[in-house]
Amino acid sequence: MKIQPVKGTRDFYPQDMAVRNWLIDGWKRVSVRNGFEEYDGPIFEYLKMFQIKSGDEIAEQLFSFEDRGGRNLALRPEITPTLARMINKKINSLPRPIKWFSVPRLFRAEKPQKGRLREFFQWNIDIIGEDSVLADAEVIFTTVDYLREIGLKPTDIKIKYSSRKLLNAVLKKIGISEEKMNPLYTLLDKRSKLPSDVFSATLKEQVGNKKSEQIIDFMNSEKVRDIPSIEKGDDADIALSEIEQCESHLRNMDIFEYCAFDPSIVRGLAYYTGIVFEVHDIAGELRAIGGGGRFDNLLHDFGGPKISATGMGMGDCVLSILLEEKGLLQKQLSMSGPEYFVAFTNEPYLQKAIEITAKLRLAKFAANFSYKPIGLSKQLKQASEQKAKKCIIIGSEIESGQLVIKDMATGKQEIVRVEQFLTQIES
Amino acid sequence: MKIQPVKGTRDFYPQDMAVRNWLIDGWKRVSVRNGFEEYDGPIFEYLKMFQIKSGDEIAEQLFSFEDRGGRNLALRPEITPTLARMINKKINSLPRPIKWFSVPRLFRAEKPQKGRLREFFQWNIDIIGEDSVLADAEVIFTTVDYLREIGLKPTDIKIKYSSRKLLNAVLKKIGISEEKMNPLYTLLDKRSKLPSDVFSATLKEQVGNKKSEQIIDFMNSEKVRDIPSIEKGDDADIALSEIEQCESHLRNMDIFEYCAFDPSIVRGLAYYTGIVFEVHDIAGELRAIGGGGRFDNLLHDFGGPKISATGMGMGDCVLSILLEEKGLLQKQLSMSGPEYFVAFTNEPYLQKAIEITAKLRLAKFAANFSYKPIGLSKQLKQASEQKAKKCIIIGSEIESGQLVIKDMATGKQEIVRVEQFLTQIES
Repeated sequence: MKIQPVKGTRDFYPQDMAVRNWLIDGWKRVSVRNGFEEYDGPIFEYLKMFQIKSGDEIAEQLFSFEDRGGRNLALRPEITPTLARMINKKINSLPRPIKWFSVPRLFRAEKPQKGRLREFFQWNIDIIGEDSVLADAEVIFTTVDYLREIGLKPTDIKIKYSSRKLLNAVLKKIGISEEKMNPLYTLLDKRSKLPSDVFSATLKEQVGNKKSEQIIDFMNSEKVRDIPSIEKGDDADIALSEIEQCESHLRNMDIFEYCAFDPSIVRGLAYYTGIVFEVHDIAGELRAIGGGGRFDNLLHDFGGPKISATGMGMGDCVLSILLEEKGLLQKQLSMSGPEYFVAFTNEPYLQKAIEITAKLRLAKFAANFSYKPIGLSKQLKQASEQKAKKCIIIGSEIESGQLVIKDMATGKQEIVRVEQFLTQIES
Repeated sequence: MKIQPVKGTRDFYPQDMAVRNWLIDGWKRVSVRNGFEEYDGPIFEYLKMFQIKSGDEIAEQLFSFEDRGGRNLALRPEITPTLARMINKKINSLPRPIKWFSVPRLFRAEKPQKGRLREFFQWNIDIIGEDSVLADAEVIFTTVDYLREIGLKPTDIKIKYSSRKLLNAVLKKIGISEEKMNPLYTLLDKRSKLPSDVFSATLKEQVGNKKSEQIIDFMNSEKVRDIPSIEKGDDADIALSEIEQCESHLRNMDIFEYCAFDPSIVRGLAYYTGIVFEVHDIAGELRAIGGGGRFDNLLHDFGGPKISATGMGMGDCVLSILLEEKGLLQKQLSMSGPEYFVAFTNEPYLQKAIEITAKLRLAKFAANFSYKPIGLSKQLKQASEQKAKKCIIIGSEIESGQLVIKDMATGKQEIVRVEQFLTQIES
């Protein structure tokens, strides 16, 4: 009987776990220094919660099940609904702006593909209760702060930003009715993933030839003020001003070299209302590394007050592929060894080695020893393989209350009285 | 529309998350210093994997579901089957002993009770490939090393240990047949949870009056060699010798004051084969805080070679209740504030405050600022509430290239040139 893991899930052997921890610790560290506090919710919630406002695409991707009471539950495919639920519950007692982050484990019941697994981790940062575009800029800044710290350069990645508000205003001008917007967002969001003839044929089918051309023209605009037929004070103009303000903040924050306006950025989910952005590899070979934007209606849609919100999500799968390609994963992971390895020269001294190891650990030092009474040179080899900083050697000196400490870097040995050593480590 | 979380799950608001991180970071830190390496597996696996060797109790407690391909999957109720699967897959390339730890999120589809939720975290440590009782002792030591570090004393908790091998030998002597053993272990394990008349009635029903008395006599023995009718070299004698060796190691490791022999410790799961133990609060008011033991057949049962194994699991729920009761949770959590708060005296200086904040963060300092152009005294109050160590004040001095740095602890202020300050933080 050979048991396999489920396809689209991952086993994290110690080496893989070290990579996972390095990624996640980085997300946490950067979140904290940017003023975000950590939260988390349950792995499963009521199915119906995920069906609010997330668009059909999400609903199809859920692992759902019934509990013994017949309640319909689902594994979370994103944490934003949980965030909305939690914030709404305590909205009156939380000082604003609320800046929260989380690194939830998420699930998608879809066919695994490169960079898209059925189980993954996702860094989420959100700012709730701040209308100003400065909050959108801060979310983008925090994203770049992390990517820059782990070694990605403006020649590796680009933050492409646009505005859902702008897109909505332009589509309205073109003559798209409000009820056609959501399916259209979903289609436009898939533009880079579909063959271009399939994309334009589908778009023409949805909106007709002329509108289709106008939409593609808009998505190809290169500068913020390149968009045609904007009038001062109309919705598109307001959206463009917001984009310009955001750009000004990004310049002021000194990360603009990582950023570029790109009106083909749509985001698939229905709930976005303002600035939207995605992180892409410059080569354009991978899916988006992360993305986000403003969602000012979501908390209200979840039964709370009307309160503004903006945020970002970044999964670990595509990011890992990019870092691997760029050679940025391995060099970060020179694992450090224990402070001490406690060796012994003869089997009768094993007891003493155990005793000293236990004392070291209780004094909060990392310490290892060999279970088997193997030769001293083999033990020293183990100590060296484990990258121990010092090796304690318990030999005949122990009979007169002494032990040997060998510095593994310099090879220098010194003889120390046991009591003196123990007093030292315990202080 | 008010959405609730599912009963038996928890929302982790930032304060709760700080407690969870403190607990889990402690588990990780103590594991590493005791020589364990971290691993993890998927949240869900094939349902059938959890049905191997775990006894009926586990099988009833699973959240199970089908994926789109009709495969039967389940949320993991424990990580040991995953461990067995992962170790078996790489058994030939892993140097032994394999010392691994994990802090999986686990799930039980049962009615939530005090200290027993449907979703929880569990610290797991396991030593694979080491026959010696020393490995069992090291698992117990690591458990105590953690509990002692977080402030629990021998007057708070006790490690109660016995041996499944001893119990099995004694039951055989009494005349229990092998096929009755597993249901009997399950019943005996429940002794402390059942009213004593219910327990003895059920036991009598299963084994008859006389055997029932003999079993209860055994479970009430107070010393290792108190067990009647042991003959030199029989299975019970071997099991007792192992217990004595384990005790000798625990004494040598200087943690025996936390430990006590207790033959009523059984462990519910079928797979144990040697030393077993549980961590209990001295007052005896709570469920077991943790437990474990030797399971030398499990890897073989999962399709691998016959290889010895011993380990421990400890959940976060009962532990949190005990720590709360003992007043050991809150005092650990005086959250530290950011290194800097960047304040500004007038709205036009907000841009400069954003710029300096961004530079601090890019230089890896935690730094906050106020979005709103509120008065300086209000900003200083915010800085103080957030426990910022230093406050940068951007005022009219900025026109001549200077800023003010206020030490929040001493109240001392100094004026520094902006370039000088930036050079300093970037180095």
